[in-house]
Amino acid sequence: MEVQIAVAKVNKYAISESGDTLEVVERPNGGLSVVLADGQTSGRGAKAVSQMVVRRVIGLLAEGVRDGAAARAASDALFTEKQGKVISTLNIVSVDLRSGTIVLTRNNPAPIFICRGEQMDVIDEESIPLGTSRNVRPLITEIAIEPGLIIVISTDGLTHAGKRRGLPMDVGATIGSVLEDQDPSPQMLADSLLAQAVSLDEDRPADDISVVVLKVTARVGDNVRRMTVRLPIERSARLS
Amino acid sequence: MEVQIAVAKVNKYAISESGDTLEVVERPNGGLSVVLADGQTSGRGAKAVSQMVVRRVIGLLAEGVRDGAAARAASDALFTEKQGKVISTLNIVSVDLRSGTIVLTRNNPAPIFICRGEQMDVIDEESIPLGTSRNVRPLITEIAIEPGLIIVISTDGLTHAGKRRGLPMDVGATIGSVLEDQDPSPQMLADSLLAQAVSLDEDRPADDISVVVLKVTARVGDNVRRMTVRLPIERSARLS
Repeated sequence: MEVQIAVAKVNKYAISESGDTLEVVERPNGGLSVVLADGQTSGRGAKAVSQMVVRRVIGLLAEGVRDGAAARAASDALFTEKQGKVISTLNIVSVDLRSGTIVLTRNNPAPIFICRGEQMDVIDEESIPLGTSRNVRPLITEIAIEPGLIIVISTDGLTHAGKRRGLPMDVGATIGSVLEDQDPSPQMLADSLLAQAVSLDEDRPADDISVVVLKVTARVGDNVRRMTVRLPIERSARLS
Repeated sequence: MEVQIAVAKVNKYAISESGDTLEVVERPNGGLSVVLADGQTSGRGAKAVSQMVVRRVIGLLAEGVRDGAAARAASDALFTEKQGKVISTLNIVSVDLRSGTIVLTRNNPAPIFICRGEQMDVIDEESIPLGTSRNVRPLITEIAIEPGLIIVISTDGLTHAGKRRGLPMDVGATIGSVLEDQDPSPQMLADSLLAQAVSLDEDRPADDISVVVLKVTARVGDNVRRMTVRLPIERSARLS
């Protein structure tokens, strides 16, 4: 089998710095974790908050702390520092090779979509962002690693796309229509979702948008781990 | 422009855990850094060392510490803990959007290859791994971000491939022959180098091998950041 993870990420229109922070780190006992945070508001302040949350979580995961405990610790630290005035969403997607499972940790109102063949499950129970109070609990979902599994996670920029114009994005329907194509790559699915959202926002995203797609394939190939990162450079960013 | 970074990574034959650790992190002032460490020996002990080095470096980079200072700090910490008995190579590749440059930090005897069009430069001055003494200095090279630039960095598993059989890998020649093809993607170049090394080791890599390829393209596309990770799962790893 192979686990493939794709990320597509865009900034709010006319804001050079995304308030979303995403990092992928190795787990000390095998596998990896994707950590995604969206700090309240946008621009530099939001970036500082989401970076702080992600740094703390990856530091704890690196020490072998479990995902749920890392989320609670990051929430307590944020609440202690900001007294509930600044909050941040958090999603952790962990491929845990020891248990043979994918562990989803969620402190984010935005739903998680889980697809297996024709079936699509939506995880959308009420979920509270980090830093809102002293005792924030993450929602944890554990799923066996199986070929055909597809998981879609995003920040609320995706689910809120188009709302400004009264044409809200239907994320589930978009996933369904892309999956009707022949076996899309996770990058293609992430790109399609992002493109749809940006289009609904008339090419001027109303918020930072980050989409993470995880796909498990039956593929038996070499044992090579691979990673590709693509970083567009705007002229203004280079010269500032 | 767009900076594309590709990684291909394989474990030493019959060793389930790579002694190489690689992480990609966002820089607090824009851009990103790839941090690659190779701990002495192989297996779990080497992994612990390279993970410790990479964690320390990315923690410092996240605080805004400059790359060279982060390398020195990681070296001092390793020397203090292990008294020179355990060493680790380190490479940092930073895309610094503030200065518009790529900063290469090197504490690794393995050379760095820098290609621009037909021209190939090799950085192979003597370079000392971290943890060898109290005052280890990294070699720093700074290069303007320009379309056509290709940089290849690896752990010594690549340069040492085939030596066991007296058929050592010629990394520069392999890069040259792949680049003669029409504009290979960085992933294709990384995969080709890794495949050549594994083949010279008769499909049983004598060491962990990690290859990082950075390429700058003139491409003007959307402003979407993208990342793909592919993690093969061996049955034994899942069940252990």
